[in-house]
Amino acid sequence: MTLLERYKATRKRTEDICEPLETEDYVVQPVADVSPPKWHIGHTTWFFETFILKDNYTGYQEFNPDYNYVFNSYYETVGARVIRTDRGNLSRPTVSSIYQYRKYVDEAMTKLMECGCSKEVEELITLGLNHEEQHQELLYTDIKYILGNNPLFPAYSKNQVSTVQNIPGADHLISINEGIYEIGFNESGFCFDNELGRHKVYLEPLKIAKGLVTNGEYIEFINAGGYKNFTLWHAEGLDWVRNNKVESPLYWHSIDGQWHYFTFQGLQAVDVHGILNHISFYEASAFASWKKMRLPTEFEWEAAADQITWGSRWEWTESAYLPYPGFKKAPGAIGEYNGKFMVNQKVLRGASDVTSPGHSRKTYRNFFHPHLRWQYTGIRLAQ
Amino acid sequence: MTLLERYKATRKRTEDICEPLETEDYVVQPVADVSPPKWHIGHTTWFFETFILKDNYTGYQEFNPDYNYVFNSYYETVGARVIRTDRGNLSRPTVSSIYQYRKYVDEAMTKLMECGCSKEVEELITLGLNHEEQHQELLYTDIKYILGNNPLFPAYSKNQVSTVQNIPGADHLISINEGIYEIGFNESGFCFDNELGRHKVYLEPLKIAKGLVTNGEYIEFINAGGYKNFTLWHAEGLDWVRNNKVESPLYWHSIDGQWHYFTFQGLQAVDVHGILNHISFYEASAFASWKKMRLPTEFEWEAAADQITWGSRWEWTESAYLPYPGFKKAPGAIGEYNGKFMVNQKVLRGASDVTSPGHSRKTYRNFFHPHLRWQYTGIRLAQ
Amino acid sequence: MTLLERYKATRKRTEDICEPLETEDYVVQPVADVSPPKWHIGHTTWFFETFILKDNYTGYQEFNPDYNYVFNSYYETVGARVIRTDRGNLSRPTVSSIYQYRKYVDEAMTKLMECGCSKEVEELITLGLNHEEQHQELLYTDIKYILGNNPLFPAYSKNQVSTVQNIPGADHLISINEGIYEIGFNESGFCFDNELGRHKVYLEPLKIAKGLVTNGEYIEFINAGGYKNFTLWHAEGLDWVRNNKVESPLYWHSIDGQWHYFTFQGLQAVDVHGILNHISFYEASAFASWKKMRLPTEFEWEAAADQITWGSRWEWTESAYLPYPGFKKAPGAIGEYNGKFMVNQKVLRGASDVTSPGHSRKTYRNFFHPHLRWQYTGIRLAQ
Amino acid sequence: MTLLERYKATRKRTEDICEPLETEDYVVQPVADVSPPKWHIGHTTWFFETFILKDNYTGYQEFNPDYNYVFNSYYETVGARVIRTDRGNLSRPTVSSIYQYRKYVDEAMTKLMECGCSKEVEELITLGLNHEEQHQELLYTDIKYILGNNPLFPAYSKNQVSTVQNIPGADHLISINEGIYEIGFNESGFCFDNELGRHKVYLEPLKIAKGLVTNGEYIEFINAGGYKNFTLWHAEGLDWVRNNKVESPLYWHSIDGQWHYFTFQGLQAVDVHGILNHISFYEASAFASWKKMRLPTEFEWEAAADQITWGSRWEWTESAYLPYPGFKKAPGAIGEYNGKFMVNQKVLRGASDVTSPGHSRKTYRNFFHPHLRWQYTGIRLAQ
Repeated sequence: MTLLERYKATRKRTEDICEPLETEDYVVQPVADVSPPKWHIGHTTWFFETFILKDNYTGYQEFNPDYNYVFNSYYETVGARVIRTDRGNLSRPTVSSIYQYRKYVDEAMTKLMECGCSKEVEELITLGLNHEEQHQELLYTDIKYILGNNPLFPAYSKNQVSTVQNIPGADHLISINEGIYEIGFNESGFCFDNELGRHKVYLEPLKIAKGLVTNGEYIEFINAGGYKNFTLWHAEGLDWVRNNKVESPLYWHSIDGQWHYFTFQGLQAVDVHGILNHISFYEASAFASWKKMRLPTEFEWEAAADQITWGSRWEWTESAYLPYPGFKKAPGAIGEYNGKFMVNQKVLRGASDVTSPGHSRKTYRNFFHPHLRWQYTGIRLAQ
Repeated sequence: MTLLERYKATRKRTEDICEPLETEDYVVQPVADVSPPKWHIGHTTWFFETFILKDNYTGYQEFNPDYNYVFNSYYETVGARVIRTDRGNLSRPTVSSIYQYRKYVDEAMTKLMECGCSKEVEELITLGLNHEEQHQELLYTDIKYILGNNPLFPAYSKNQVSTVQNIPGADHLISINEGIYEIGFNESGFCFDNELGRHKVYLEPLKIAKGLVTNGEYIEFINAGGYKNFTLWHAEGLDWVRNNKVESPLYWHSIDGQWHYFTFQGLQAVDVHGILNHISFYEASAFASWKKMRLPTEFEWEAAADQITWGSRWEWTESAYLPYPGFKKAPGAIGEYNGKFMVNQKVLRGASDVTSPGHSRKTYRNFFHPHLRWQYTGIRLAQ
Repeated sequence: MTLLERYKATRKRTEDICEPLETEDYVVQPVADVSPPKWHIGHTTWFFETFILKDNYTGYQEFNPDYNYVFNSYYETVGARVIRTDRGNLSRPTVSSIYQYRKYVDEAMTKLMECGCSKEVEELITLGLNHEEQHQELLYTDIKYILGNNPLFPAYSKNQVSTVQNIPGADHLISINEGIYEIGFNESGFCFDNELGRHKVYLEPLKIAKGLVTNGEYIEFINAGGYKNFTLWHAEGLDWVRNNKVESPLYWHSIDGQWHYFTFQGLQAVDVHGILNHISFYEASAFASWKKMRLPTEFEWEAAADQITWGSRWEWTESAYLPYPGFKKAPGAIGEYNGKFMVNQKVLRGASDVTSPGHSRKTYRNFFHPHLRWQYTGIRLAQ
Repeated sequence: MTLLERYKATRKRTEDICEPLETEDYVVQPVADVSPPKWHIGHTTWFFETFILKDNYTGYQEFNPDYNYVFNSYYETVGARVIRTDRGNLSRPTVSSIYQYRKYVDEAMTKLMECGCSKEVEELITLGLNHEEQHQELLYTDIKYILGNNPLFPAYSKNQVSTVQNIPGADHLISINEGIYEIGFNESGFCFDNELGRHKVYLEPLKIAKGLVTNGEYIEFINAGGYKNFTLWHAEGLDWVRNNKVESPLYWHSIDGQWHYFTFQGLQAVDVHGILNHISFYEASAFASWKKMRLPTEFEWEAAADQITWGSRWEWTESAYLPYPGFKKAPGAIGEYNGKFMVNQKVLRGASDVTSPGHSRKTYRNFFHPHLRWQYTGIRLAQ
């Protein structure tokens, strides 16, 4: 696939994800972490306009200078921006204006690629496409939140199946030997800067589960009073449970004594054989304590990656999100991509049902604050 | 005009107000006090369904039982409801669903009226229409906030002229004699319950301005350092100014040293002869102090109403919003209409450019918290 | 009594109130509205130093220039100050330093008065003494809060009796005739500026209770589900009840199913014949609604004052705290005394068990925000 | 030294630290992280009473059952407690009551030790003494905050010298070889549970500074606009700087253009040769970026510990506070000591001027949230 073909396919996939939406669904931001779909549509376009077209397309005419203010996410280098919590307060630009913006930028990008571009620009385009794939996953998770917190519980699409059955033998424990392992990206092809700085780590011997924890296992934890047993929790986890009155994973509702959850098909009874989804790091860690096990570190996970089954949930690890030895920030705005978030967050490894195909790999490092759970997050046990 | 004709005209006017909107404009709630236009469209419909059709239309089939939860504003009697700050988080029901709801209820209401209804039901319908007129004004003010806080400053309609020139001799002072005055509604026709309990008040002699304060006069106050002169302000007003960094009326922007404001036609240079708009009670009171005058009480205003020019701004009075002697709450949910708000708010008298024709009268009592300014508020001086 | 004698007696009374305290009790500020006793001791002293000695005592040497920053309460004219919520964060000046400050200022004040002073200075001293009497009441109420919110419930003094039995016939209703009444101070002697501007008001006929509501009557309201019956409450009152989980007056605790309250002698069983204390305006108003009565306005109260029994509780009125017609602010810092608080507060009339003798009178206007209840507040019914 | 001798010496040292305080200084809590000194005095006593005397001293009579509620810090196992932010709202128990409590417990502990106690009890006593030493350091840092945030800037003691001159050659870089290092406690004697689970780590080659950064070097960072250069900061660090308007280390004040800081002797001019103190992790990391260096990890620090000069500041590391492989929580309340805090915090290594003698060691792991700076924190650079 040429870069242009890949560009077109990736850009189309974003629009396909939004296809089932009503115009109104594009606009709202029910919590700060969830961005309005129209913002994602505009922001991924702004990324190409700002970091590629402005510098590399001679005579490029900016679509609308105000859009820079509207669609900048967090790049201090690029100037002022709408504060994150205000994204859902903007009715304009309209969805159709943003699709026009998208089309305008796509045409310029197409011309740019048809004329041929330098290796450096190709790398930036590849970064932009990987960036867009990250937003494709965010689109799924944000759309789920928008619909799942609506009192009408509207389905996203009746056709999509989102419950994933667990693999047989998921709780089988695989042994990993003590010793030195190489960690970090070491192949050809694209990776993010946070995967670089391949380096050695020394691992103590461990056992790690082949598969992930199921809804049924988690219901046992709930029924055993797991949310009230303070010995299982981090102090800040317990505060989070109490302040937010958490009693189950996100999207779960007890209806006439039976657990239901919101899915892309609407409210459904919880499938006890399905893989657990939408829990915070605090819940993952408490569940592991209850099982008298623990979460793996990201290094243990990477060392075991070829022997375990992964890809349906992003898996919380015990590791904090920190730079690898030898991590280097790129100069300029692109250098703000990852490094400045390397504090107070936890690493997640793997991929999820709603990760774009080919986007993840075993060295991929995802990261979120420990209380968040609107992503497709799950639990793998180790000891 | 028959009640049915009036019903149809009033309902149509609401839809006419929304006609220039994009779908996205119907959805957002940039601050808690501003409701999404689609919520107004649904809530005014819910009012007729809940308080009239359910009790009086035999065999009436509720359009959608979930809508009761979505469109109840503050009626405890009627059950649980979406909390006010969450109205802008709901992408569903869609705008077109709500218009279907509206059409469905209008058809039932039409049939009900065509069959003839009791005097009591006619009174409830009249209340519903006056309620809808209140929301018509709120639609204008909320739309203005939604567009006026968007960084693109989109115009609502290029045709509508919203700047009002002041009358000649606006600062002429009219004398009102000392004595006993009758206050409260005393005519035939509709009034709200808070206007009832006509009673006598004793007024000391006063002078009151024939017209309202202009933008130009207010600019003098700004230029004289009015916002920084603490002797002019209430203590809570000063806190409000400092915490919110207030330096001018709402919607004003200083561009290259000249004052502009957002209007329904977009950003425009401030018209110094236009009537001042969008100030809080605190600002109104501080301005009056700076002029060595004061605001009138609501009783003084009503006593002077026939001799002054009013109708373009709701005018802050010194009076707190309190029940008249003999005020009676209606039984049931309708009794929640006014009485439960009679604390911590200020009375405004008059009407505004965006008040529905025929909606206000000289005994009408509007009320808002003293820091609010997204309504069409102005200043009349007294001494 | 000469002014000097009165000065000495008043200043001594403040110290007498603090006599039972431990040093630690002088320091803490458990909520923003409660000031540390040592702050009251210093602030009342600072008032004399700042407004009298500095201007009128030739060659006066300020005790410590930093104290101006520490002990200014809210006078913008006099400069910067410790923000109110930080008063309890200051361990210095120590209690003994503040008593030295007090002694230093008292000696200078004594010399000033012995030398004779102008009528204007005498008036300022009288204002300072009335100001100190206001702080004497606040000392009692703040000390009660400091001890009553301590988990050890320490007694202030075993000797002081604070429960007040109600008068016989407290619920007898007295009739007040319709007509014009004169309101405001009209005698010789001291009054606050907010009592001035004597003026006429027209009252409709009313009935007003001879005495106040008892604890026993209020327990009936609680038992009848008064706190949960939303029809009785203002909307903001209901929010206050729900957000703060209010189920009884301040300082009440249900122990083994029986109501107890904290008094200056420690925890005691509630006396059902005692006069109700420590309720907010919201509770007072809801209780009156439950009785199918209402609270009197401050004008009704003043008109009835000679025929009712008052003096044990400050009584919430329906009236908002607003300027009388003809209210005038004094020039300079003293003008900040009352006027700048005339918004968002309710008037209370009467006096309380802990009001300094001779401090109140029938034209006296006390004022607090409607949710506050650490003062000695009670309910008188009208209709 | 016998355990009893060590007990007496440690307990006395706590009281010696408080000796220069006024009674009022014992009471206040200016921010949530700072506890009132009297709380430390009581809590360290409660620790011995609760975890040792109640279980091991036959017939022990609790001093006051209410003290359990007052002096429990965070042990869920032991029951309800005063919430942390309320510690400064308690005037009782008084300082002298708490010293009586202290004496009472010390007498019982003395008797217990004189009678001889089991190895297990001796270990608990040793834990209690190490716990008390931690609170000794907190007493110093909390007292500094209490006095340093008082507008009078009172000295703690004129005799104590708190500025530490840097060593010569502090910026000399020491090389550490690549390879496997053993991390964690491996000696006889006491250590905390978080140091256990000695394990191997693989380190890449690095250079690490022999000494710490000075005030003078940090002033260069300030003068170079370091606080405004967003490229140097974590995103959350930048938010912290902006929201708190941070422009210098804690306790620094610019007076007439010259930097001063609060010390235990009062306000003094900043010593440019002194070792930098009171900076957050965010500031430490931004400073290192500005120097084109980085902070060491805790493993690098421990590997280099014998070759560097340490002991005057706790040094921020890049490492998050996580359990070592093989970390085990003790059963019961003591198990709450460390493990439940292992999320969202950063590890600090070393010791400080105000650390109790003999308390720290090269495997010691201190930990705080990244924004905190009232501890004696400093910067060591690595690359």
